[in-house]
Amino acid sequence: MKIALDAMGGDFGPKTIVAGAAAYAQTRTSTVLLVGDPNRLEPLLSQYNTDRLVIVPARQTIEMDEHPVQAVRKKTNSSLVVGARLVREGEAQALVSAGNTGAAMAAALLYMGRVPGIERPAIAVPVPVVSGEAIILDVGANVDCRPQHLLQFAGMGRTYMQKVRGIANPTIGLLNIGSEGSKGNELTVKAYQLLEQSGWNFAGNIEGREVFSGQTNVLVCDGFVGNIVLKVAEGLGMMLFDTMKEEFAVSKIAQFGGLLAKQALHRAKRRLDYTEYGGAPLLGIDGVAIICHGSSNSIAIRNALSVAEDAVQAGLRDSIASTAVRLGGENSD
Amino acid sequence: MKIALDAMGGDFGPKTIVAGAAAYAQTRTSTVLLVGDPNRLEPLLSQYNTDRLVIVPARQTIEMDEHPVQAVRKKTNSSLVVGARLVREGEAQALVSAGNTGAAMAAALLYMGRVPGIERPAIAVPVPVVSGEAIILDVGANVDCRPQHLLQFAGMGRTYMQKVRGIANPTIGLLNIGSEGSKGNELTVKAYQLLEQSGWNFAGNIEGREVFSGQTNVLVCDGFVGNIVLKVAEGLGMMLFDTMKEEFAVSKIAQFGGLLAKQALHRAKRRLDYTEYGGAPLLGIDGVAIICHGSSNSIAIRNALSVAEDAVQAGLRDSIASTAVRLGGENSD
Repeated sequence: MKIALDAMGGDFGPKTIVAGAAAYAQTRTSTVLLVGDPNRLEPLLSQYNTDRLVIVPARQTIEMDEHPVQAVRKKTNSSLVVGARLVREGEAQALVSAGNTGAAMAAALLYMGRVPGIERPAIAVPVPVVSGEAIILDVGANVDCRPQHLLQFAGMGRTYMQKVRGIANPTIGLLNIGSEGSKGNELTVKAYQLLEQSGWNFAGNIEGREVFSGQTNVLVCDGFVGNIVLKVAEGLGMMLFDTMKEEFAVSKIAQFGGLLAKQALHRAKRRLDYTEYGGAPLLGIDGVAIICHGSSNSIAIRNALSVAEDAVQAGLRDSIASTAVRLGGENSD
Repeated sequence: MKIALDAMGGDFGPKTIVAGAAAYAQTRTSTVLLVGDPNRLEPLLSQYNTDRLVIVPARQTIEMDEHPVQAVRKKTNSSLVVGARLVREGEAQALVSAGNTGAAMAAALLYMGRVPGIERPAIAVPVPVVSGEAIILDVGANVDCRPQHLLQFAGMGRTYMQKVRGIANPTIGLLNIGSEGSKGNELTVKAYQLLEQSGWNFAGNIEGREVFSGQTNVLVCDGFVGNIVLKVAEGLGMMLFDTMKEEFAVSKIAQFGGLLAKQALHRAKRRLDYTEYGGAPLLGIDGVAIICHGSSNSIAIRNALSVAEDAVQAGLRDSIASTAVRLGGENSD
């Protein structure tokens, strides 16, 4: 198996990406195609003694702040677009990128396409939860959704948790503002009814308070709400740690306590850092595509490559196609 | 001035509410009408030596889990409904309740009514921010909004921050998934245009990450998103503190650090607890109504009573009516 890795994406540049690929190559067996500028990649690669990291040249780079669709259309020789094309042409079986998320979705849509019957591919993010394992989707690809879209998100998330994460009968929750089925806005009230009739393990509405408790394996929402939830969590986490630091500075005793507690704080922070969890799959894309947080370190890249390999081996794409057929997708092949 | 206080609302019962009223009476001069069951209130009141706490009998109580509108219609002799009626009849100038939030909004709408020209009253919650002062609205009263509603929320929030909180020219932000004006869903893209034309101090889109940084004084969103944001923050806060406790338990040194840091942690927690901030105004209600978190302690009740008094003295209701006229409300009186 070959995995195309956007070697130019991410906040920390090619060095971190290549280190992640090298870490991956130590434990797994697929070949990683490092897509990017050979002049920058070759010196980095020379440190590692492996023939399972191969450079594929791409002369352009899509920056984090570029307009996703425009950048993908314009920079046809960017590491991201070349990576997506490698998958379309069968040269690679999966795409991994820590670059511009919107651009990764755009490149995947444009060059890899949708699974027949899936109207809206979605970004699914693993959520750090108290116990168990959970993903939330969509977190940004689709800002205006219809109830049918949420049903498809649920089906795709369920398939992912079954096939790639090995959870036999994943529970599904609908992110909402009350526990009863009658609660919510127009979208969630109707989506609730569809989910109730789905025959899946639907656990009903999940309130914001329970997003991080892991009550369900798959949590469904529209991309606007999902994006806000993730970013609120990120911002609040940072604020809490900053507040704690300030509070520790107030007295000598608390300061001493803070010093002793530093490692514990650090571990707590890491437990809540979703880059640790191995990347976010773009579900509904016709092939395997995994995106990573821009601030991914080499461990996160290694984990994302492993998830990509697992997803290909588990036949994720075909399972999602079957789910789409079950849901009555129009163009099911 | 008289303030009607729902003495039966809140998770901790009348004892906490009466203690809050007594704490208020020590520093401020308005009379508090304690609305509720005299048999329970009289023994509690006998501890306090003040004639500015007066019991107004109400035989029924609306529970936290009752259906808001049904409960308000059925229990016409509940502490909440009697309190709202006192305001309508001019016996009190403001209503404060820590009971069922939905029921408080329903009672206020039904018995106090809307400010002419305001289509949708909203719940505005003070947000703990790193620096400055901020409210977010709506946080649950209106789950399906039109752009015009968000504009009205902004106008009401702005008026509240000016008149009651003394901020001369409050900044307004629109909660959204990107910083550019073109970002967002149908609702926020259109609301952005309205806010840009408002002539107010519009600071543009605010992403989820910045909700707790206090970049703007007034943060506007629909009630579905606002409710999710608040509850995600609540849940994540609890999870973080639990995680930290666990991490502190891992090693002896961290444990010792945790002990020393305990007070700092406690202070950090309190800084982020929005019950400290004195209740959430129902903006657009024809009169002053303040709701408190169900888990409010006596300090929170005291603070909410103070906010209610400030809002009445500042002429909040009339200022919001003027804002509605400016916004071209149809029935502006």
